[in-house]
Amino acid sequence: MDKIRIIESIKSLSVKKTDNMYLNDFFLTWNKKDDEIAAVFQVAEILRSMRKNNISPRVFDSGLAVSLFRDNSTRTRFSFSSACNLLGLTIQDLDEGKSQIAHGETIRETANMVSFLADVIGIRDDMFLGAGHTYMKEVAASVHQGYEERVLPQRPTLVNLQCDIDHPTQTMSDALHLIKWFGGIDKLKGKKIAMTWAYSPSYGKPLSVPQGVIGLMTRFGMDVRFAYPEGYNVMDEVVDIAEKNAEKSNGKFEIVNSMEDAFKDADIVYPKSWAPYAVMEERTELLRAGDDNGLKDLEKKCLENNKKFVSWECTRELMNTTKNKNALYMHCLPADITDVSCEQGEVQADVFDQYRVPQYIQAGYKPYIIAAMIFLSRFANPAEKLMEVMDRADRRIY
Amino acid sequence: MDKIRIIESIKSLSVKKTDNMYLNDFFLTWNKKDDEIAAVFQVAEILRSMRKNNISPRVFDSGLAVSLFRDNSTRTRFSFSSACNLLGLTIQDLDEGKSQIAHGETIRETANMVSFLADVIGIRDDMFLGAGHTYMKEVAASVHQGYEERVLPQRPTLVNLQCDIDHPTQTMSDALHLIKWFGGIDKLKGKKIAMTWAYSPSYGKPLSVPQGVIGLMTRFGMDVRFAYPEGYNVMDEVVDIAEKNAEKSNGKFEIVNSMEDAFKDADIVYPKSWAPYAVMEERTELLRAGDDNGLKDLEKKCLENNKKFVSWECTRELMNTTKNKNALYMHCLPADITDVSCEQGEVQADVFDQYRVPQYIQAGYKPYIIAAMIFLSRFANPAEKLMEVMDRADRRIY
Amino acid sequence: MDKIRIIESIKSLSVKKTDNMYLNDFFLTWNKKDDEIAAVFQVAEILRSMRKNNISPRVFDSGLAVSLFRDNSTRTRFSFSSACNLLGLTIQDLDEGKSQIAHGETIRETANMVSFLADVIGIRDDMFLGAGHTYMKEVAASVHQGYEERVLPQRPTLVNLQCDIDHPTQTMSDALHLIKWFGGIDKLKGKKIAMTWAYSPSYGKPLSVPQGVIGLMTRFGMDVRFAYPEGYNVMDEVVDIAEKNAEKSNGKFEIVNSMEDAFKDADIVYPKSWAPYAVMEERTELLRAGDDNGLKDLEKKCLENNKKFVSWECTRELMNTTKNKNALYMHCLPADITDVSCEQGEVQADVFDQYRVPQYIQAGYKPYIIAAMIFLSRFANPAEKLMEVMDRADRRIY
Repeated sequence: MDKIRIIESIKSLSVKKTDNMYLNDFFLTWNKKDDEIAAVFQVAEILRSMRKNNISPRVFDSGLAVSLFRDNSTRTRFSFSSACNLLGLTIQDLDEGKSQIAHGETIRETANMVSFLADVIGIRDDMFLGAGHTYMKEVAASVHQGYEERVLPQRPTLVNLQCDIDHPTQTMSDALHLIKWFGGIDKLKGKKIAMTWAYSPSYGKPLSVPQGVIGLMTRFGMDVRFAYPEGYNVMDEVVDIAEKNAEKSNGKFEIVNSMEDAFKDADIVYPKSWAPYAVMEERTELLRAGDDNGLKDLEKKCLENNKKFVSWECTRELMNTTKNKNALYMHCLPADITDVSCEQGEVQADVFDQYRVPQYIQAGYKPYIIAAMIFLSRFANPAEKLMEVMDRADRRIY
Repeated sequence: MDKIRIIESIKSLSVKKTDNMYLNDFFLTWNKKDDEIAAVFQVAEILRSMRKNNISPRVFDSGLAVSLFRDNSTRTRFSFSSACNLLGLTIQDLDEGKSQIAHGETIRETANMVSFLADVIGIRDDMFLGAGHTYMKEVAASVHQGYEERVLPQRPTLVNLQCDIDHPTQTMSDALHLIKWFGGIDKLKGKKIAMTWAYSPSYGKPLSVPQGVIGLMTRFGMDVRFAYPEGYNVMDEVVDIAEKNAEKSNGKFEIVNSMEDAFKDADIVYPKSWAPYAVMEERTELLRAGDDNGLKDLEKKCLENNKKFVSWECTRELMNTTKNKNALYMHCLPADITDVSCEQGEVQADVFDQYRVPQYIQAGYKPYIIAAMIFLSRFANPAEKLMEVMDRADRRIY
Repeated sequence: MDKIRIIESIKSLSVKKTDNMYLNDFFLTWNKKDDEIAAVFQVAEILRSMRKNNISPRVFDSGLAVSLFRDNSTRTRFSFSSACNLLGLTIQDLDEGKSQIAHGETIRETANMVSFLADVIGIRDDMFLGAGHTYMKEVAASVHQGYEERVLPQRPTLVNLQCDIDHPTQTMSDALHLIKWFGGIDKLKGKKIAMTWAYSPSYGKPLSVPQGVIGLMTRFGMDVRFAYPEGYNVMDEVVDIAEKNAEKSNGKFEIVNSMEDAFKDADIVYPKSWAPYAVMEERTELLRAGDDNGLKDLEKKCLENNKKFVSWECTRELMNTTKNKNALYMHCLPADITDVSCEQGEVQADVFDQYRVPQYIQAGYKPYIIAAMIFLSRFANPAEKLMEVMDRADRRIY
C-alpha cells in the first residue's frame, strides 16, 4: 500500500467496532468479535505498509513490554520484540531462572511488581494442558485488580504468545497470509483447508496450533477438514467452537480419518505434528509430580506410538490430489522435513521447498499481527491515532 | 499532581541544594545531605506525576545503563529497567556468566570497558558482608579515574541497587510511601516505627534492609525501635549512624529485645527476617574458600537456630497492640507469609492481606526513586531541566 | 572536533567512494577498498565527535539489531550494544540456549525469521577454524536471498564481531588508535609494528587478532614484523594477503623468528597469545566429534607446549630495544599480565601499566568503529545523511 491507500484503509477502519479491545487482552481468537478480528488484520497491514513507506508508527516515547517465555522460542520472541520495538516499547524479559518467582512468589504479586511502567505483557506458556491459559488469565486478573486498586497507573494488556489452548498470533498470521494469497477475507469463503496431523519423530508438541487453526478458519466460511490418527484428538471444547463457527459462517467443519481424505481437492493444506491428548494430560501430571523417570517412559512410549503413523507425511503424491494439484502448503515452522531435519518427518523436502518462500512470508506477518493487537488494546480510537501518525510522518529511518 | 502543581513543585525544587549529587553516586543514604534526600523524594514525585499526565520525561536520546545483578532480583531489576526506560536509557546487562569477568579481569578494566557510552551503572551485590559496598566503590573509583584520564567521555554514575550495608532504593521508596501515607515528610516527626526481625524458614537474607531502614528513618525525627533475637544484630557502624541521626533529628533510636516491645503503640511496623551477623560473616569466608560442605552445614545450623524464634511473627494479636490497633504494616517483599508461602513465616496471612494494597503501592515508588537518583546525578540544574521537559510537553503515549 | 570541524570532515567524506558498502556486509578488512576503510575511520570520528558535542546521531526511530555471540564477550558485546543504541537500534540477542536453533533449524530459516524488522546482524563466531566466517557468509546469503524474494522488507547487513579469520572491529579500532596517536593515516607510513606471539597459560585463543592485524596494518605502508614460535603460524591465505598489501602500499611484511627481532627499533608492539594453527584444526575436529576426552588431552598437550615459550614475554628489557625505548604497546584486552592475572603471562605489569590509559582509549574506539560500519551499510549517501543530522542538531542529553 502506498500512502494514499494507507489513509483510505485507516478511514475504513474507523467504522469497525473495536471498543471492547481497548485495555483488554488477546487470549483466544474465538472470544473476539468479527470486527475485532478484521481490525487486527487491517491494523497489521497498515503498520506494515507504514514501515515500508518509511513512516514510523512509534506511539510510545517510553514504556515496558514484559515478556515471559516458559518454553523455547526464536520466531515468536523476535516477533514480539520487533512489534514492541516498532511501537516504541522496550522489552524486559521476566526470566524465571533469574527472578524470584522460583522462590515461591504468588502470581498476583509478581504480575503487579513487574507492571508499574508496563503497557504490555506477552506470555508463552504452552507446555501444560490446563495450565497456560489459566495462568495468563490469572496474570490479567492480577494487573486488572492492580489497576483498579490504583497500584498500577495503567492497565497493561496481555498478548497470548501461545498457550495450551490457542496460538492466536500464529493463526492470525496464517489467516492474514491466506487473505493476501487469495485476495481478500471474503475470498476465503468456501475454500477447502486441510488441517491434518503429520508424523514427526518428536514428542510433546502443543495442541495449540491445530486448535487455533480450526477455531479461527471456521469463521471465514471455509470448508475445514480436520484429520488425525486415533488418539491424537484435541480439546473437545475447541471442536465445539469450530462446529459452531462453521455453522454461523455457512462454512463446514468435518473430522476425517486420513490425510488422504483431508487433502482431496483442498485449496490449502496444513500438515503438522502434535502430541496425543492423553499423553499431554499424563505429561502434565508427571511434570507436576516431578516424576522424571515417568516422563522418560512416557516419551519413549509416545515416540513408539507416533511411529505407527509414519505414513502421515505430506508427499508430492498427496499434494497431487489437491485442487489443481496445487494447494497452498502451510506450516507454523520449524517443520520436520524428511531427509533434511530428520529421517522421516511431516513433509517431503521438495514439497516444502516449493512453498518455502510463501511460508517465510507467512511468518513475516507475525510481528505486525502482534503490533496490531497491542495497538488496538492501547488506543480507544485506533483509526484517529493512526491518522495522527500519518500526519506526523516521522521517518522510521532518518 | 496536575500540571500546575508539578510546575510549583519544580519551582520549589530549585531552592534545594543538590550540586553535590551531580556526577556523583548514590551508595548510602547517610552520606547524603537532607536537601539531597528531600530532592530525591521530590523529583520522584515530579517524574511520577509527569508520567500520569502523559508527559514524557525522556531526557536521553540514547545512552546505556549498565546493570549488574550479583543476586537474584525481579522487582529491583524491573524497577531499574523502568526508571532507565522512562528517562531514555537502554539497559545492557553485565551478565557475569556470559562475560569475561569470569576469566579474571580486573574491576577497573571491566568498569571502563562497559562504560564508553554509559550514563548509569546499577549494581546489586548483597551476598557478602564487607564486599558489595567495597566493590561498588571500586567500580565508581574506576570510572571516575577513567573520566579524568579521558578514557570515558562522560562519568557514569552508580546507583546502589542493594549492597551489604544499605538498600537505598528500597528504603527511600519505603520513606516516600510513609510521606504520602502520613501527608508530608514533616508528619513523620514523632511517629513510632518498629523495625523488627521476624522468623522465616530461610537463611542468608541480607542485612541491608534493616540497616537501611534504621539509617534512614532516624533522620525524620521518628521514634525508631529496633528489635531482634540475640545474635541477629547488624553492623555496629550503622547502629552508630542511627543513634547520631536520631539525636540530630530530635527523634529516638532504641534497641529493644522483643517484637512485643517494639510493636507497642507503633504507628508503623516493619517485621522482616534477616540472617545473624556472625552467620553472614562465616558465610562470606566459606563462599570465598569455596567450601560447599561448610556452607551446607552453616545453612542447616542457621535454619535450626532460626527455629528458636518462630514466635517472632507479625500476628493479629500483636497488631492489636499498636497505635489504635492500626499500625501501617510494611515489607520490602516478597514476604514469608504463614500458610501461604511457607508453613510458618514472618507474618500472618490476614495481616498481610489487610496491607497488601499499600505494600504494592509502596513498591511502585521504586522506579521513580531510581529515576530521581539518576536524574539528579546527570543534570547540574535539575529544576531547570524539569521545567524544560514541562515546556516541551512531549507525550509519553502519542 | 568542534562543530565546524565536524562539518568540514563530513564535506571531505563526500568525495570518498563508499557505494559498495551500502546494503553490504563487513566481514574482512582486506575485501574493502582503501576509500571504504578510510570512510569507516572518518565516520567513526564524526560520530564520536557528534556525541562529544551532545549532538545525537540517532538515525533509526526503531529497528532491531540482532546479536549472536557464539563465544564469551564483554567488550565486544558492550561495543555493539553501544553502537546500536547510539544510532537508535535495539539489540535482540539470539541466544542459542534459549532458541530453537538447538532443535536443528537451518541457518537460512533462522536468519530470515529473526530479520523481519532487523537492520543489522552482529555475529561473533571465532571458536572453530573454517567455521565462523563460513557461517557468517551463509547468514548474509540467506538474508540477501530473503530480501530478493521479498520475504524481508529490508536487507539486514552483517557486522563481523570476530570470526576465525578476522576481527575487523578490533583491528580497525587499533588502527584508528594509531592514526590518532601518530597524527594521521599518512603518518603510519614506514612505522615499524611488531605483531608477535606472547606466552599465556591459556589455550585456544583465536588467530583472528594477529591475522587481522597483519592483514590491515600492511595497507598503510607500515613495516610489519610478524613473530611467533614454531607451530604458531597462522592461515597461509592471510599471510599472502599481508605480503600483497605490503607490496602495494610500499610497506614491508616480514616473518621473524623471535620477539627480540620483531621488537628491535619498533614504533609499535602488539604482543599477544594465540593457539597453534594445528591445535586449532584438531580442536575443531574434536569439538565437532563431541570428543570431550580428546579435547581435555589436547588442552593439556597444548598448555605443555606453550610452556616451552614462556620467554616470549613483553618485558621492560625488550621494550628498551624499541625505537627510543618508547614503542607504543598495544593489546586487544584482556591481557595476561605477569603477577597480576597469572604467574607468567604476555606482558610485565609495569609495561602494561605504563600503557594502560592508551589501551583503554584504544578500546573506546570500538563502539564508534561498529557504528560507522553500520552507518555506511545503511545509507546510500552517508555524507548527506550526516549533514542532515548536524542540521537537525538533536541533543543526545536533553
